[in-house]
Amino acid sequence: MTAADTFAPIHPLLSTDADSTLHRALIHRMDGKTKPPGSLGRLEELALQMGMIQQTITPQVTRPVIIVFAGDHGIVAEGVSPYPQAVTAQMVANFLAGGAAINVLSRVCGVSLEIVNAGVAGEVRATENLINIPVGRGTRNFAYEAAMTREETQIALARGAARIAVHQQQGTHVIGFGEMGIGNTSAASCLMARLCGLPVDLCVGRGTGLDDAGLARKKRVLNQALKKHTGFDPLYVLMTFGGFEIAMMTGAMLAAAAARMTIVIDGFTATAALLIAHQIAPNILEYCVFSHLSDEIGHQRLLAHFNAKPLLALGLRLGEGTGAALAIPLLRAATSFLSQMASFDSAGVSNRS
Amino acid sequence: MTAADTFAPIHPLLSTDADSTLHRALIHRMDGKTKPPGSLGRLEELALQMGMIQQTITPQVTRPVIIVFAGDHGIVAEGVSPYPQAVTAQMVANFLAGGAAINVLSRVCGVSLEIVNAGVAGEVRATENLINIPVGRGTRNFAYEAAMTREETQIALARGAARIAVHQQQGTHVIGFGEMGIGNTSAASCLMARLCGLPVDLCVGRGTGLDDAGLARKKRVLNQALKKHTGFDPLYVLMTFGGFEIAMMTGAMLAAAAARMTIVIDGFTATAALLIAHQIAPNILEYCVFSHLSDEIGHQRLLAHFNAKPLLALGLRLGEGTGAALAIPLLRAATSFLSQMASFDSAGVSNRS
Repeated sequence: MTAADTFAPIHPLLSTDADSTLHRALIHRMDGKTKPPGSLGRLEELALQMGMIQQTITPQVTRPVIIVFAGDHGIVAEGVSPYPQAVTAQMVANFLAGGAAINVLSRVCGVSLEIVNAGVAGEVRATENLINIPVGRGTRNFAYEAAMTREETQIALARGAARIAVHQQQGTHVIGFGEMGIGNTSAASCLMARLCGLPVDLCVGRGTGLDDAGLARKKRVLNQALKKHTGFDPLYVLMTFGGFEIAMMTGAMLAAAAARMTIVIDGFTATAALLIAHQIAPNILEYCVFSHLSDEIGHQRLLAHFNAKPLLALGLRLGEGTGAALAIPLLRAATSFLSQMASFDSAGVSNRS
Repeated sequence: MTAADTFAPIHPLLSTDADSTLHRALIHRMDGKTKPPGSLGRLEELALQMGMIQQTITPQVTRPVIIVFAGDHGIVAEGVSPYPQAVTAQMVANFLAGGAAINVLSRVCGVSLEIVNAGVAGEVRATENLINIPVGRGTRNFAYEAAMTREETQIALARGAARIAVHQQQGTHVIGFGEMGIGNTSAASCLMARLCGLPVDLCVGRGTGLDDAGLARKKRVLNQALKKHTGFDPLYVLMTFGGFEIAMMTGAMLAAAAARMTIVIDGFTATAALLIAHQIAPNILEYCVFSHLSDEIGHQRLLAHFNAKPLLALGLRLGEGTGAALAIPLLRAATSFLSQMASFDSAGVSNRS
């Protein structure tokens, strides 16, 4: 189970003379637009990044997609969430019926939505719009044993990556990943603690809304689990703490960067999936846009680990890809100003003296 | 020139029993949606605010508009901007031709755009899509005399307010204001210094991109002007430092709140216009959404004066209403989740225990 064998290579964005020429051309084009240089701030950074990713001076937000991966977690038996496990399957049904937050925000933000059963424990009705590729019926309880086997981990990574090929064929250049899984902030907290080398207490938050007693219990459970499972290899860590939806996200992220897509990173759990991907292929970060700072307590520190500046800070703590969806109009604004704004020359506007 | 005579009253949002009932109904409706309570963060605050403004549990972003007011400033004779005054008129032509940043961002964000000549110095070709209501050909130089007369100030306030009546008739419920005027951050800095009681050096930034020498000169010029003009009355301050576009924004903001529109506040100069409006009618703030934190140095302190939490922090420093446009999709997301998301009951999702 080694990285080099499994994953397609991710191209560094500035490695050839042609890359340098393109980089200069993008900056020249932006500075010629009818505005003071740099005055569109982060939008200019986004336009430059997306131009380099798509290798063009006219990058576009073509067929943006958010994939929501859903899976269950054995660790919920330890009482780490205020919601019952059944909610994962119920929310998948809600996604498929169009009633969840991510359905609404995807519509508002002009994003296609795909729902994937990565490994839900409860009954999921396989409707036409469900991508039904579960690796299992929820992971094992990592308080006692590894959440996934090595084989399950590999399968989940590969199935996540396979979704990217489908969307690439349909022309997608921008992709975001969301998740649904009662208990998955517990898995994400353990990934973060181990891979960032932080005390887990700094990585654990209230998730969907634990009270003080619940938070104390969650910290105790995760501290014990981290003592039990001591490895540092990223795939070992992923296998140990899970889950199916996190592993599919990781595989999809790696494949998306290899396919030169711009990856829109959502909240705490999605950013934890990126931790694994980043250890496997560090230059994946060149392809990532960090959509938002979540209200989940560990997220700020996790973003700092990546030296990431999130685009939005709206106090969201819902997951599902909701923050990623809200960032799409900003990406569209960035690529549109680059392609559609007039230049000082074309508009006959005097430049600064 | 008193406030009470001139401006329509602005209704406080929570003053009647019916208001309290609506407030409770909005919170109840949000908490019944299939998500942990409060997990949509600022979107929930926006939905609540807009519900109260529109007096309905299903607020909507109906026919959003951004009005860009353009005007010139006599103070530019003192060398406070790196761009020549001619740029104001040239940029108005650029707006009308569709090539400026605000044109692109309005399109991307689904907002109607209106361009108003509030008092540009240069020649402005009166095309069909220009609202051509100038109060003068640029203001006077406030280094030596008041930028506007009392009559000009009143006319500008009234003409700004009159635009709101037009949009109200066409069904607009959400409105943002942008500006274009070489030199207008100088006027805005003086408004801020006087009305916030701050040293002007804390209120002065590089505007469109002054170098260090230019910034020092701008500070010297504005310090001298503030010593020359010593009054504190908000309309005196507005008259003294100008400008026509700022006064029209102020009048439009007051009228928009009176018309129960949600007002999307843009960057530094627009927020300075709100300073005047706020002194005239403090509860205008209940109708305001602060779209973004600008990179112009005084803006953070100006937002703090209003205890405002901007939705976006993208390092923009362009004006034109660009930040306001980018906030519109967030408002749409807020009203849409409230009206379109399923409830725990309707979706058959288990609520927390």
